[in-house]
Amino acid sequence: MTAEIISVGTELLLGNILNTNAQYLSRELAELGITVQRESTIGDNQGRLADFVNEAKNRCDLLVFTGGLGPTADDLTKETVAACYGDTLVFDESEWEKITGYFARSGRVTTPNNRKQAMVPVKGRKIINHHGTAPGAWFEQEGRCAVLMPGVPSEMKAMWNESVRPLLMKRQNCTLHSVTLRVLGGESSLEYQVRDLLENANPTAAIYCKTGECEIRITARAASDAEGEKMCREYAKKFYDLLGDAVYDEDVAGLEETLVRTLKEKGLTLSTAESCTGGLIAQRITSVPGSSEVFGYGFVTYWEAAKARLVGVEPDVIAKYNVVSAPVAAQMALGAAQAAGAEIGISVTGVAGPTGGDALRPVGTVYLGAARGETVYVKKLSVSRPDRALVRARAAQAALELALRLAQGKVPAGTEPLARDAQHSAEALDKLNEVFLGH
Amino acid sequence: MTAEIISVGTELLLGNILNTNAQYLSRELAELGITVQRESTIGDNQGRLADFVNEAKNRCDLLVFTGGLGPTADDLTKETVAACYGDTLVFDESEWEKITGYFARSGRVTTPNNRKQAMVPVKGRKIINHHGTAPGAWFEQEGRCAVLMPGVPSEMKAMWNESVRPLLMKRQNCTLHSVTLRVLGGESSLEYQVRDLLENANPTAAIYCKTGECEIRITARAASDAEGEKMCREYAKKFYDLLGDAVYDEDVAGLEETLVRTLKEKGLTLSTAESCTGGLIAQRITSVPGSSEVFGYGFVTYWEAAKARLVGVEPDVIAKYNVVSAPVAAQMALGAAQAAGAEIGISVTGVAGPTGGDALRPVGTVYLGAARGETVYVKKLSVSRPDRALVRARAAQAALELALRLAQGKVPAGTEPLARDAQHSAEALDKLNEVFLGH
Repeated sequence: MTAEIISVGTELLLGNILNTNAQYLSRELAELGITVQRESTIGDNQGRLADFVNEAKNRCDLLVFTGGLGPTADDLTKETVAACYGDTLVFDESEWEKITGYFARSGRVTTPNNRKQAMVPVKGRKIINHHGTAPGAWFEQEGRCAVLMPGVPSEMKAMWNESVRPLLMKRQNCTLHSVTLRVLGGESSLEYQVRDLLENANPTAAIYCKTGECEIRITARAASDAEGEKMCREYAKKFYDLLGDAVYDEDVAGLEETLVRTLKEKGLTLSTAESCTGGLIAQRITSVPGSSEVFGYGFVTYWEAAKARLVGVEPDVIAKYNVVSAPVAAQMALGAAQAAGAEIGISVTGVAGPTGGDALRPVGTVYLGAARGETVYVKKLSVSRPDRALVRARAAQAALELALRLAQGKVPAGTEPLARDAQHSAEALDKLNEVFLGH
Repeated sequence: MTAEIISVGTELLLGNILNTNAQYLSRELAELGITVQRESTIGDNQGRLADFVNEAKNRCDLLVFTGGLGPTADDLTKETVAACYGDTLVFDESEWEKITGYFARSGRVTTPNNRKQAMVPVKGRKIINHHGTAPGAWFEQEGRCAVLMPGVPSEMKAMWNESVRPLLMKRQNCTLHSVTLRVLGGESSLEYQVRDLLENANPTAAIYCKTGECEIRITARAASDAEGEKMCREYAKKFYDLLGDAVYDEDVAGLEETLVRTLKEKGLTLSTAESCTGGLIAQRITSVPGSSEVFGYGFVTYWEAAKARLVGVEPDVIAKYNVVSAPVAAQMALGAAQAAGAEIGISVTGVAGPTGGDALRPVGTVYLGAARGETVYVKKLSVSRPDRALVRARAAQAALELALRLAQGKVPAGTEPLARDAQHSAEALDKLNEVFLGH
């Protein structure tokens, strides 16, 4: 089955709005095994829209429209597509009651324009909108179909999931089951590693990369959900075999969600001391509902004096090794845990740029610390082609990864340990500092 | 002049990548006075691409392509478009040297495929890529033009600004001058207020809304930059007359940038005590280069004990009024300033949800404090239709606005003052608490 996605709205052509609907529908259609051949954005112009629909309906089996279902005079998608598919529209009393009720509840009155929204297909079918006033529509002629959904992303997604997706699954006579693996690691290398597994018809697997991690979404089409789940599990195993514990979780919103859940499971609490990330790590942790169970205190220690006063870094250590150094990261992490009475402390000190680097510590150099029990683990990050936002994002991601490994009871990879007892020993700090210089 | 934007890449049709290029180019073309009539995304398929180009070149004056200029076999945009515009490609020695040099510097060797990238138009012109290996191309036939740029957003934007935009301005015989106003306030009401000013041919004005603020971009086309600037200034004045000091700055990345600059100008420093925003405010402030001049200490006081220990909130005050209350916000702000030795302290305590609200403090209730000198100003925010991320984003935005007003020496609108001396007085705190209950 082939499809095209059509976004209708002059505001899109002016660049006033970023079109996120097309990407969402592309992924969803791909999972249904429907090939998207073209995506188009058209303005609210009846002539151009009609020309477009007449061309497009002969190129593929399904046209998926978003937008142009509003009450204003230039919202013409429904009328135009109906005509192209040999259908007409009729006034629907129950939709009209819904619309007037909706307006009444929000203390407004309808205008004559609003009646347009209550028009529904005669031969085709209306699609109920449970989250707004504009119903969707389905048209069909000689086996070629068109579906119309609202342009507001939340309404579109809801209508897609509640009505359109099930309708298409029924036509395809299948169910879908998905699992999303979350994987730590650099984008291009990871993509290369798993490339062979991404070329499969069923289950499909697609990779979406973000800063410091990727998402691998596996989707199986099957006659039953149980069978789909089994197919997903078997296919997921291939990724686990290849990637090991770089796969840190399934079906979560991000590393912070896994970290908070793991801390809860183990009955641990965590504290942060952030310099160049400036609150970004605490912000990510507290974005997770229920994080207050495991996170109570965060320190943004931007100045050297703040590092000393809030988390007990020795001014002499800063003077000797530089504020961006392994010994300072180690003392910050230990200090954060102690000041908060937390089991785990994590820290970041680095040069986010655009200025402030030197030969030993160019912009993009970050030291991370992660303390638990009697040991603190230090890691160095060198972000190439650094810009301020990227350095901060990578540093926060790396810090959350260290925290997760400690919460899991593992020794984090690529780190150097220092004993808590040795944190004030010149010899031990010298040694720790040496390890990272020249890396 | 009319145009279409064409994004080439199967990965876009699969939804693997969000297409941000189309929005960027839509805005830029609109500013040049070029009407974008359609945007399309096409896969890497030579037949379908050729069909498309042959249709599209007769519909408008200019086709703007991004993507499909890579070295692999399925990158066919240049060959295909050349043929449609009656042009051919020729191997360009200087481009090839650039490519081999680029590979050598990154320690790699070129493959035969890479030679494709050194092919340039015979009749048209190549467009130098200063930020990558793939040159762009310009084709022209009987007054109809096509321009090809890389798909990587950073390379595309650079080529657009360095070469394509100047070329189009020259053809249009004009220069462009732009100014972007930053405006605080609710999105829909603001858009309604300025709607008449958005319908102008030259200068154009477009509004882009974000959480708690909008951006109004004014662009004038003129024969000289000086004339364009004058036109922009005159048109901007209309917005200032309408919106007053809701316009907080021009040509900045966000409220945090204006705040940091204002603090620097006034020689002030600032500190934060965050509960429900969990570091988001500190993160936004420290995202500004040079913020270390004005920001040294940030406290994420998620637990009640943290509010007491780090910024001196009295446990009795929490017990009496609730942790989400005006008295607690006031003590947090005063305590943040004092603990950091900063002139200004800001604070947030609220119910971000999804759970945790009660009748007096439903999810979405946030108290903000802003202290300077002998006074702390408290404000209450009630976010309707709250979700956790939205509540946090609105609270951070409101806190930054309070801080900016204090830095400017103004009394922030919609706040209740409390004297520093009265922060431990039961009577004064009772009174402050009363003002906000039932709002």
